[in-house]
Amino acid sequence: MDRKLIGVDLGGTTIKFAILTDSGEVQQKWSVETNILDEGSHIVPDIVESINHHIKLYNMDKSQFIGIGMGTPGTVDREKGTVVGAYNLNWKTVQNVKADVEAGTGIKFTMDNDANVAGLGERWKGAGENGSDVSFVTLGTGIGGGLIADGQLLHGTAGAAGEIGHVTVEPNGYLCTCGKRGCLEQYASATGVVHVARDMAEEFSGDSELKRQTDDGQDITSKLVFDLAKSGDALAVRVVDKVCYYLGLALGNLANTLNPESIVIGGGVSAAGDYLLKQVDHYFQEFAFTTVRNSTSLKLARLGNDAGVIGAASLALSFN
Amino acid sequence: MDRKLIGVDLGGTTIKFAILTDSGEVQQKWSVETNILDEGSHIVPDIVESINHHIKLYNMDKSQFIGIGMGTPGTVDREKGTVVGAYNLNWKTVQNVKADVEAGTGIKFTMDNDANVAGLGERWKGAGENGSDVSFVTLGTGIGGGLIADGQLLHGTAGAAGEIGHVTVEPNGYLCTCGKRGCLEQYASATGVVHVARDMAEEFSGDSELKRQTDDGQDITSKLVFDLAKSGDALAVRVVDKVCYYLGLALGNLANTLNPESIVIGGGVSAAGDYLLKQVDHYFQEFAFTTVRNSTSLKLARLGNDAGVIGAASLALSFN
Repeated sequence: MDRKLIGVDLGGTTIKFAILTDSGEVQQKWSVETNILDEGSHIVPDIVESINHHIKLYNMDKSQFIGIGMGTPGTVDREKGTVVGAYNLNWKTVQNVKADVEAGTGIKFTMDNDANVAGLGERWKGAGENGSDVSFVTLGTGIGGGLIADGQLLHGTAGAAGEIGHVTVEPNGYLCTCGKRGCLEQYASATGVVHVARDMAEEFSGDSELKRQTDDGQDITSKLVFDLAKSGDALAVRVVDKVCYYLGLALGNLANTLNPESIVIGGGVSAAGDYLLKQVDHYFQEFAFTTVRNSTSLKLARLGNDAGVIGAASLALSFN
Repeated sequence: MDRKLIGVDLGGTTIKFAILTDSGEVQQKWSVETNILDEGSHIVPDIVESINHHIKLYNMDKSQFIGIGMGTPGTVDREKGTVVGAYNLNWKTVQNVKADVEAGTGIKFTMDNDANVAGLGERWKGAGENGSDVSFVTLGTGIGGGLIADGQLLHGTAGAAGEIGHVTVEPNGYLCTCGKRGCLEQYASATGVVHVARDMAEEFSGDSELKRQTDDGQDITSKLVFDLAKSGDALAVRVVDKVCYYLGLALGNLANTLNPESIVIGGGVSAAGDYLLKQVDHYFQEFAFTTVRNSTSLKLARLGNDAGVIGAASLALSFN
């Protein structure tokens, strides 16, 4: 009998699920809304119910499953199977996620941080091409990272390995939500791009649609900045150049430290595609050490929203 | 019968040897000069002869040894057991080190890069206290690094993981021997400290013994700069502050990336001791993300010259 995996990607808005083969092919996908009411106390029961319901729906049996893997926000204690401090889920106290999911489904359960899990997904079935040294950076509202080195996902002593978003790229630069200054996240996340655009618009005096919209008090998005830059808007081009400079610096230094085969760039900002990649690579080449420049390459993520469920499912391979 | 390890630390001037127990206690130490004549062709035979001689001298038997581990300059191919490009040994072509040492001694042999091996030593029996996440940085003529994450030594895809010396700390800064600009090595290695001192002396107008000696054309060393700073020399104090700023920035970002339990600082420059550590830590605190600041600590290396042989010996534990 074929053995299957279940991947769960727990987010503040939706919980995504997938059933995969043990070689990582997605066979079924579904999602439910995340109910964060009552201190997030409905989340784990909803996960259990949704899994049990779908196993029945697809005429499958619990014994077919190697395990369930999940990516979650917050701080994960992998040994205890608990999560704490996932504020977008309203999880303020320690949640016994592993115990509850295993009791409710009768299937083995394991989990990790959401950015780590997305990194595992891109490494396994995406742009990382199943390499043993793959770094993943996701440019969304914030910036997260998942680092696989010598075949292993890195966690660090307090689970903070891969905090690429909080690498300092501009000492005395923008104040970050984390309390320190000049974090990459303040320059190259979706909100960072807008911050850079607003600041540069103030000083810019030439002709620019981006400047007009900014001065006009319109809502500026990272997507708008990249779209305008692609169409040649003088200010937007400069904003993108600055963003790519900081990304190139941070990823160059990440590569000088870990020398991965590839650094995979995902998240909303990476929708700018090759236009972004080419400009980041220009600065990456400037900041990477020769051996690193010749052996580490930058790539765009390929799995989109599926990276989470696929990477989460891969965690459960450890039960095999 | 007790099982022993042999550790070899191959350098451009001396080859250091040690016999250790499998728990890492050094029982015998000796060293020989490195003979780099004839394209370094005497080196491996000298290693073989010295090991065989000492095993006999101590009335030991080959069967007592788990294996020989060695740290070497150059680029190591760990699978093939070869080294290439170790210019300070005059090794320009590929050297079949493993095959030759095993044939000559009858003992299993393994090796790794010298900075990696020193990192393993400090992790095992030094300041790293056998932790599973330890980063080692050596501030010598150049700057090297050895990174242990989740219990494993990191190599990267082309063996360039841990190139902390070539992390860019000052875009458009000093030109490095590697061809790029602003590498940490140009500011915080022994030669880097002198470079910073010379540049700052030019612009300094106050009273300073360091300035007098520099203007006088005397030989300035990193040790002199730190000694004068400790005695309150106004220019030397500023030079040390700048050096520690760059170290704090690079190590803060290393910690934001790997979140090790400890970052161990070794090499000649670290002889400045707590005076150096305290000032680097000041900037480290500024550049490290909160979780990292609370879980990663900076430490001085403890093993001195023994880090290499001890770490090298630990490689041979893989034969156990």
